[in-house]
Amino acid sequence: MSDDQLRRTLAAIRPASASAVAAARERQQRLTKPAGSLGVLEDVSVRLAGLADACPPPMPQPAAVAVFAGDHGVHAQGVTGWPQEVTAQMVANFLAGGAAVNALAAQAGAHVVVVDVGVASPIPATAGPGEPGRTFLDLRVRPGTADLASGPAMTREQAVAGLAAGIAVADRLVEEGYRCLLTGDMGIANTTPSAALIAAFTGADPAEVTGRGTGVDEATWRHKVDVVRRALDLHRPDPADPIGVLAAVGGLEHAAIAGLVLGAAAHRVPVVLDGVIAGSAALVAAALAPACVDACVAGHRSVEPGHAVALDRLGLQPLVDLQLRLGEGTGALLALPLVQAAVRALREMATFDAAGVVDKQG
Amino acid sequence: MSDDQLRRTLAAIRPASASAVAAARERQQRLTKPAGSLGVLEDVSVRLAGLADACPPPMPQPAAVAVFAGDHGVHAQGVTGWPQEVTAQMVANFLAGGAAVNALAAQAGAHVVVVDVGVASPIPATAGPGEPGRTFLDLRVRPGTADLASGPAMTREQAVAGLAAGIAVADRLVEEGYRCLLTGDMGIANTTPSAALIAAFTGADPAEVTGRGTGVDEATWRHKVDVVRRALDLHRPDPADPIGVLAAVGGLEHAAIAGLVLGAAAHRVPVVLDGVIAGSAALVAAALAPACVDACVAGHRSVEPGHAVALDRLGLQPLVDLQLRLGEGTGALLALPLVQAAVRALREMATFDAAGVVDKQG
Repeated sequence: MSDDQLRRTLAAIRPASASAVAAARERQQRLTKPAGSLGVLEDVSVRLAGLADACPPPMPQPAAVAVFAGDHGVHAQGVTGWPQEVTAQMVANFLAGGAAVNALAAQAGAHVVVVDVGVASPIPATAGPGEPGRTFLDLRVRPGTADLASGPAMTREQAVAGLAAGIAVADRLVEEGYRCLLTGDMGIANTTPSAALIAAFTGADPAEVTGRGTGVDEATWRHKVDVVRRALDLHRPDPADPIGVLAAVGGLEHAAIAGLVLGAAAHRVPVVLDGVIAGSAALVAAALAPACVDACVAGHRSVEPGHAVALDRLGLQPLVDLQLRLGEGTGALLALPLVQAAVRALREMATFDAAGVVDKQG
Repeated sequence: MSDDQLRRTLAAIRPASASAVAAARERQQRLTKPAGSLGVLEDVSVRLAGLADACPPPMPQPAAVAVFAGDHGVHAQGVTGWPQEVTAQMVANFLAGGAAVNALAAQAGAHVVVVDVGVASPIPATAGPGEPGRTFLDLRVRPGTADLASGPAMTREQAVAGLAAGIAVADRLVEEGYRCLLTGDMGIANTTPSAALIAAFTGADPAEVTGRGTGVDEATWRHKVDVVRRALDLHRPDPADPIGVLAAVGGLEHAAIAGLVLGAAAHRVPVVLDGVIAGSAALVAAALAPACVDACVAGHRSVEPGHAVALDRLGLQPLVDLQLRLGEGTGALLALPLVQAAVRALREMATFDAAGVVDKQG
């Protein structure tokens, strides 16, 4: 079932439309502004035209951020100062509306979908799930992964089930009318599998792509690099087998985010990536279906060093660069108005001819 | 009259509240996120708390962007490829709703106020000024400045009148209920006086702070640097006499933007600066009342090299860096949702205690 869903989704992904890209580039030249003066926003508008196969593309709204939560067996290795229970506690906080993702989603006008794909502890009771603006989905594959430093994080079947969970969320959100998806994550210790995935897919050294997460000290950082290095030595993950890599050193939220990216791409709906967790998950998705990158917009660049390495490999330029290292989808939510502004300018601006403005270029 | 208004405004400007700044920093530590993980957004929220003397500060909304339009005698020196009439044509385009500022203001939910402070040509007729979302104000001081390369751009009285026009717009917008002001500009050739102002106030060499504006070629760029250098040699502007500097080498939209900054600061309402025109104008405002910088948020960093020099002198960190070089307020409008998100997080997020989340720091 999961296998079928993944196969169908991969088969539906097509590259961007070259004719819509060309039409959007040409239209940008005729709008009442110096050519190129909207900088990176022009590129975003062209990208979304190619994805939609339409110039101008439809507005990327309404939007929904999918926050996938999971726990990590590698927590036992002491790679973070936070207790594992905080994952479940923060899920309850999302549902009660008290987290950063809630404030930023409310500001950006985005719906919040919290998805348990692998939380290890019980989610504390909260009055929140019924509130407008947020939804909870229980798609738990297993209660946390196993310790990737001593064995595979999960089975191949579980990795596929995680991907399928993300695809199912994308299908559901597009069915409900959302026209822009954003990735979010919650999982204490999840920068460790992210670093392992980025090292596995790019060949970068663990020391280059392992960061301080939510703030570990120098000794813990060195230990974290060592854990990633040992995991890679143990599993020797093969980038030509993306599901094998994901199962060996990934996390369930990574699997689900990769699935969300694939699902969005299959529907030709843009997906705004959050930080390093999303960047590492997008490498999995891109390895399964390279054309899915045409559906991606890099919301921001986090302070995690592996994030820049992942974005570079994906060929994506981040829109926001504000020293964020929070996750939850916050960086993607901050980028959402920029993405919407980019499309709105292409859709609504007058041309030189129509506005009666002299074009020095003309 | 203008003199009085300027004097009253300068006298009303007070530095940020140290106690509100401290309270905001302390509150950021207790919110349910790793300390510091919202990066630059935390600094923005602290800054606005200091300005408002309240923690949390009020939401910076509703917002209005004031687009000040003026022409420049230095256009005669051939510093740009665009005809001077384009200033008036673009004012008509703003009023008709077809410009980038209109699309981005609509996306950000900001009102557009177009202010003629010194356009040289008649504004073409348009059906736009009565439309919801935009207003036109005729506060023209003179029809374009004189050529700063051969004499003062304007008299001291006209410079003060330009400042007073900006103050009057700030007073009016705050009276109408706006709680966040954004700067915008339109004026063919206005990157030349901007470069001259930045060189005059910072001591930087004209070649370091003169850019390609909306896209001049290498030869025109060299000529533009030479024009700025000759103007500085001619006027020897004294940064200790900011009104003298403004009169000698500034523009009327620069004067009005400086006035808007001073007016916003006097009302303790934040003002989001757009690009290099705003950066150079803010140097004028800061020279008149250094504490006005506490009211400023740098919306973005444009590709104009002088902009970074001005922001550095002002001690401001830009929020958006997307290779923009359009003006009109577009960079400020793109930053507006980020500023609002920063304040919203500080206002709405739960604390660790309230949310029942374990704080590893506690």
